[in-house]
Amino acid sequence: MTNIEPVQIDWKPDKQSQVPIYRQIVQLICAKIASGEWAVGTRLPSQRSLSQSLGVNRSTITTAIDELTSYGIIAGSRGAGTRVISNTWSLMLPTDTSWNHLVSSGFFKQNNQIIQSINRLEFDPSMVRLGTGELDPRLFPTKMWKTILQRLGNNISQLGYLEPLGLLELRQAIVAHMATLGVKTTPANILITSGALQALQLISVSLLQRGSTVITEQPTYIKSLQVFQSEGMELAGVPMDNDGLKYWQMQELMKKSNHKQILYTIPTNQNPSGITMSSQRRSELLKFCVDHQLPIIEDGAYHELCYNQQPATLKSMDDRGMVIYLGSASKTLAPGLRIGWMVAPEPIVQRLGDVKMQMDYGASSVSQWIFREFLTSGLYEQHLDELKTTLKNRRDNALQTLDRYFTDLATWHRPAGGFYIWLTLKKHLHMDQLFKQATENNILLNPGDVYDYHYNHSLRLSFAYTDESEFTTAAIKLAKIIKKLS
Amino acid sequence: MTNIEPVQIDWKPDKQSQVPIYRQIVQLICAKIASGEWAVGTRLPSQRSLSQSLGVNRSTITTAIDELTSYGIIAGSRGAGTRVISNTWSLMLPTDTSWNHLVSSGFFKQNNQIIQSINRLEFDPSMVRLGTGELDPRLFPTKMWKTILQRLGNNISQLGYLEPLGLLELRQAIVAHMATLGVKTTPANILITSGALQALQLISVSLLQRGSTVITEQPTYIKSLQVFQSEGMELAGVPMDNDGLKYWQMQELMKKSNHKQILYTIPTNQNPSGITMSSQRRSELLKFCVDHQLPIIEDGAYHELCYNQQPATLKSMDDRGMVIYLGSASKTLAPGLRIGWMVAPEPIVQRLGDVKMQMDYGASSVSQWIFREFLTSGLYEQHLDELKTTLKNRRDNALQTLDRYFTDLATWHRPAGGFYIWLTLKKHLHMDQLFKQATENNILLNPGDVYDYHYNHSLRLSFAYTDESEFTTAAIKLAKIIKKLS
Repeated sequence: MTNIEPVQIDWKPDKQSQVPIYRQIVQLICAKIASGEWAVGTRLPSQRSLSQSLGVNRSTITTAIDELTSYGIIAGSRGAGTRVISNTWSLMLPTDTSWNHLVSSGFFKQNNQIIQSINRLEFDPSMVRLGTGELDPRLFPTKMWKTILQRLGNNISQLGYLEPLGLLELRQAIVAHMATLGVKTTPANILITSGALQALQLISVSLLQRGSTVITEQPTYIKSLQVFQSEGMELAGVPMDNDGLKYWQMQELMKKSNHKQILYTIPTNQNPSGITMSSQRRSELLKFCVDHQLPIIEDGAYHELCYNQQPATLKSMDDRGMVIYLGSASKTLAPGLRIGWMVAPEPIVQRLGDVKMQMDYGASSVSQWIFREFLTSGLYEQHLDELKTTLKNRRDNALQTLDRYFTDLATWHRPAGGFYIWLTLKKHLHMDQLFKQATENNILLNPGDVYDYHYNHSLRLSFAYTDESEFTTAAIKLAKIIKKLS
Repeated sequence: MTNIEPVQIDWKPDKQSQVPIYRQIVQLICAKIASGEWAVGTRLPSQRSLSQSLGVNRSTITTAIDELTSYGIIAGSRGAGTRVISNTWSLMLPTDTSWNHLVSSGFFKQNNQIIQSINRLEFDPSMVRLGTGELDPRLFPTKMWKTILQRLGNNISQLGYLEPLGLLELRQAIVAHMATLGVKTTPANILITSGALQALQLISVSLLQRGSTVITEQPTYIKSLQVFQSEGMELAGVPMDNDGLKYWQMQELMKKSNHKQILYTIPTNQNPSGITMSSQRRSELLKFCVDHQLPIIEDGAYHELCYNQQPATLKSMDDRGMVIYLGSASKTLAPGLRIGWMVAPEPIVQRLGDVKMQMDYGASSVSQWIFREFLTSGLYEQHLDELKTTLKNRRDNALQTLDRYFTDLATWHRPAGGFYIWLTLKKHLHMDQLFKQATENNILLNPGDVYDYHYNHSLRLSFAYTDESEFTTAAIKLAKIIKKLS
């Protein structure tokens, strides 16, 4: 095939167009292939001759060719030149569906670069992960898991399809568990999901409408909320003080829009700020939401990680179906279990259960049985107690370290539970540089603007992944880096 | 609160409108509540007085009130009348998002009534399930599961978040497994999904565009394809003969539309027809698809259940990225595992993996480890061998039974594997009546129009859930019922 002559292109880009020239070239070539004009095997002209015949920079051609190559539409090989290698599935990649849009464009693109670095570096064992939102693997309750799996192996007799809401035995166990959080509910009000993220997806595709606004704390873990944006909703942030969300500031946001709004909040041990909403603020917030008919999604992922007193959940204070509560085993037991649950009015749970069945036929039954065993055996509670003790010690150590080495450099809040300390630098450093220098010193940071609606000078520190001495050693190094950059 | 006076409604329905009157009333009441005019606790007029003041039938009022009650927006109680009980989440239920539309309207609504009956009756232990698409729980390999879970318990040391494509160790095991199906691939070409259904969802939201047509065999398991419709695609069926899809009939369909088309096919042991595409038909189909640039989704859910010779997968014949192959453990091992996989070009797998991360952060790690253990230990293959022997015996018995009792009543195809026999009645009975009478005789049927684009006179029989004597006894009863109805 090497002796096939390259095709000719009789076309010039529109240099006045809003569409970048490299993109016009990508579209042209896709159109030629889609129409069948260029079959699989067709040889493209060399980059040099393309550059000449189209009258554009060589680098523009390279960008277009690289993009088409990354999609698997064309491929270059020594001697044979660049050829069309696929004309079906791969050709669908460059088109602009809403998800594509989401994944590859806009505000999140920038964030995604940092997030992608983080995702990659998390697999590097030499890194000290100072901001990770995941439990230290050394805290994994290996013995308990062995017990649970053995028990499951002795009792398991089938794993068929489950009913739409999820395993009844698990929903019953969650009812009992929710009672310990002050929430009286029934199995018919509970939907098992594949983690809390899926619950957000179900809500956004089944209940909300394009143009709605999802109000969140600012900062919040925006990445987990991209699902709302992909369904055509907007996100808007409202700041916090030490008592939590400054709910009164929502009023202005709500005036601006004719569309529906909903509130997404993590009232307890918030990610990433570590702030827990005070009891009074909770009452006031709920009253505000009732007065303004503002529905609430309460994310309780970190609620069970209060070291001392556990505040009342918003759901426990809700007597008119204002609050959908989301629970999860990801932060307390294991993210890999992929088990979350939703507590909501029965008609809502029914609807979302039906939609879930159309998406994936429900969460893994094995995972559901395992979590049920954890709950009913008392091992979950025992594990939580041990975990909270460990995390409390780690938090105390982290705060001592910060008091000692960061007083001149930053401010922070003292968390009453969870994983995180939100550290705000006093001087306005170049945060990308800080990330880079920390990485060179084998410290993996989670920069604050991953969690924010705009650039900031904060870091999400986590004391959940590192033990005391690891945290302190890394934090001392970090203080030095910050000083040097100041 | 019982002494609050009911609100007054100063409004009349538009009797000329396209919108049914009960729906206008629902919308009116929702609007009153959404605007805040009617707060939670507001008492509605009695149905009698509503009927008078709006000038509509009492039954129309009842329909509207029932609908609002089913959504949890209002509730009636003795003495206190009907009141507004929720004004946030529940109020979102009657609105028309695309999913709502899908779940509650159109062609599928009718089907859904039968499907809902089936779903309910499947939990009734007195029913003989003669059409179920699920393995007999008595074939669940209890001992193997015990071994696997014990091994997992001894080795498990953490269950963190996984990379977007899924557990590498499982993808490696699937590469080896796919080699036995003639498909050479790499872990980078494999995406682990929560069952094959999720793979379809990922494809539809990430690659396809509204207005596209998904061509399927006719009949096919339409319910699993609703996900395409919910994303704005159309389904179109093409009939089969004994060699499989009559692909040449696609040409006409393709002429009709300017939009993209894709083909979704179950070439081996098709659900519900039991037909396996011949080797020659496979070659011809692939050539046709190459010539017409028609991308293929090959659903291999039943491929591993060929009792004798296993035909080549379309994927194994594909050298230009035309075919996305979907595998699943649901029909061979356990649906509750919720593990499926996709084999596709690397850029496609990358894209879909990113989107999956935004939906649910991946499939259960426990399930992934379990399936990996099954594959690498050889227990999966051993289980498949045993399973195929059992299913083959059951099929032989089913065919003998049909030969003996149904020759005058119906026609059918002899399946070479899988679960199903597609039985087409010679006389045009009222199928709903047949379903009902069978149910009264404790036989649960899966009527054929659940799988079809229009009403038909077929049944999907399954020999996977019942043993030989159960099948024969039920089939003899069924023959009698059919005769009586003829």
